[in-house]
Amino acid sequence: MEVWFTENQTQHLRISVRVRNILHHERSEYQELMVLDTHEFGRMLVLDNVIQTSERDEFAYHEMMAHVPLFAHPNPRRVLVIGGGDGGVLREVLRHPTVEAAHLAEIDGRVVEVARELLPAINNFDDPRARVFVTDGIRYVQEHPDTYDVIIVDSTDPVGPAVALFQESFHRAVFAALRENGIFVQQSESPFYHRDLIRQVQASLRRVFPVAALYWGVVPTYPGGLWTYSVASKGPDPRRPDAERWSRYGLATRYYTPDVHRAAFVLPPFVAELVEPAGRDAGA
Amino acid sequence: MEVWFTENQTQHLRISVRVRNILHHERSEYQELMVLDTHEFGRMLVLDNVIQTSERDEFAYHEMMAHVPLFAHPNPRRVLVIGGGDGGVLREVLRHPTVEAAHLAEIDGRVVEVARELLPAINNFDDPRARVFVTDGIRYVQEHPDTYDVIIVDSTDPVGPAVALFQESFHRAVFAALRENGIFVQQSESPFYHRDLIRQVQASLRRVFPVAALYWGVVPTYPGGLWTYSVASKGPDPRRPDAERWSRYGLATRYYTPDVHRAAFVLPPFVAELVEPAGRDAGA
Repeated sequence: MEVWFTENQTQHLRISVRVRNILHHERSEYQELMVLDTHEFGRMLVLDNVIQTSERDEFAYHEMMAHVPLFAHPNPRRVLVIGGGDGGVLREVLRHPTVEAAHLAEIDGRVVEVARELLPAINNFDDPRARVFVTDGIRYVQEHPDTYDVIIVDSTDPVGPAVALFQESFHRAVFAALRENGIFVQQSESPFYHRDLIRQVQASLRRVFPVAALYWGVVPTYPGGLWTYSVASKGPDPRRPDAERWSRYGLATRYYTPDVHRAAFVLPPFVAELVEPAGRDAGA
Repeated sequence: MEVWFTENQTQHLRISVRVRNILHHERSEYQELMVLDTHEFGRMLVLDNVIQTSERDEFAYHEMMAHVPLFAHPNPRRVLVIGGGDGGVLREVLRHPTVEAAHLAEIDGRVVEVARELLPAINNFDDPRARVFVTDGIRYVQEHPDTYDVIIVDSTDPVGPAVALFQESFHRAVFAALRENGIFVQQSESPFYHRDLIRQVQASLRRVFPVAALYWGVVPTYPGGLWTYSVASKGPDPRRPDAERWSRYGLATRYYTPDVHRAAFVLPPFVAELVEPAGRDAGA
């Protein structure tokens, strides 16, 4: 059987994956939602025809979203994930024994329900420390000042409702929702294909936070395979993992290590140029 | 106009790029050779329907192939590139003022001729230190013992004639062709899709050389976007660039820096596990 799913990664670039089965397909209140069983990547979550995550490569993205801020923070106890309805980032957050509350604010409750049923390898919603709020993440942040140690935005591409998550008014609300020493991370797209967006996010974070930086990692199913994460902090240097805590936990990760953490902030010049000198110095 | 070129990156994964024009197409003695003008990547060299390089992303691959061994070697004067008929690696080698002779051994002379004419941004064959030998790279290496300081294999995937370039008998010939302190690098495919090949190359290099290691980099047009390079050395630690020399040259690179060089050897666990402990320790 030769059934293929094709994503238009840019106007001029497509990726196609061979499909074994369509496990789920619906149009939710917010988006078109699909779970595919693919030959190359196992089960795959697709929203509005864009690949969000897959069983085979999700570890690269989820580990780098969660462990960089959590190992940079001195004592992460309360963590909020915005978006990320598949539960992958939340699962990694829950691997930290310091975490007492891991909250997820996802606008589309159907993503969480479908992921819980069809992508159990990716999530761990039943952990007693986890709570899911089906709500608008921006409003949720505005209504919870001084509440979280780490806030992570695992959003879709900046199209439609996700646009506001990349803007300064949201970053100011995040700043207010973070407690002392708080750290913020959001996925900030590809340094090949979304250069203006990265510049804009970095500039906004530098206006709002005392420390801002960019790190990168590999995600094979995302355009270009190379992805960026924008991080900002109220104090701790996001480039410095607590390697002692890491050793103590003994996590069996497949992408993240403290050395990978530090190396992820070493940017090739074509990426570094997206971060203005002021931003590069801020966290150095 | 919606004309698309599609590469089967694996049996179950395809990449498609929108084509503005087919600038060249022929069947040479060895392979099917195409140069496409694409919207996303500019001009692109395609051999047997596999993307080899493009104007937009070639810097990431060519800089990491050339500058890692050349800045790790204490005084690279004679350099051999095997394959690499597009001239991109040779161009980067020629940016080193210590280099007196930069030789290219390419089996298919048509690739060099077409690249010289249609991909002038990628190559610099007219440098007086450059020489092209249209010949079988394996035989060429066997016939030139104790001749080169650095040997770089920029081959196609291990299919057909390229298979032998990944085998121990070739690595032994390379060892013999290298002078004292010699360093060898070859592209060794994707850590997502060609894991057995990487294991095999690393094991072979460890049997032949006193020092072997693996480093990685991003190449958006290659499968998964993440690529590996296998390096071996008769003495110098390939992980340690000469940062002083780098500063003195003032090269305007877009991917390579000495910090990127060091960071490229920091492997996520899912890549590190392809290198056996003995190999990981060898260059540490």
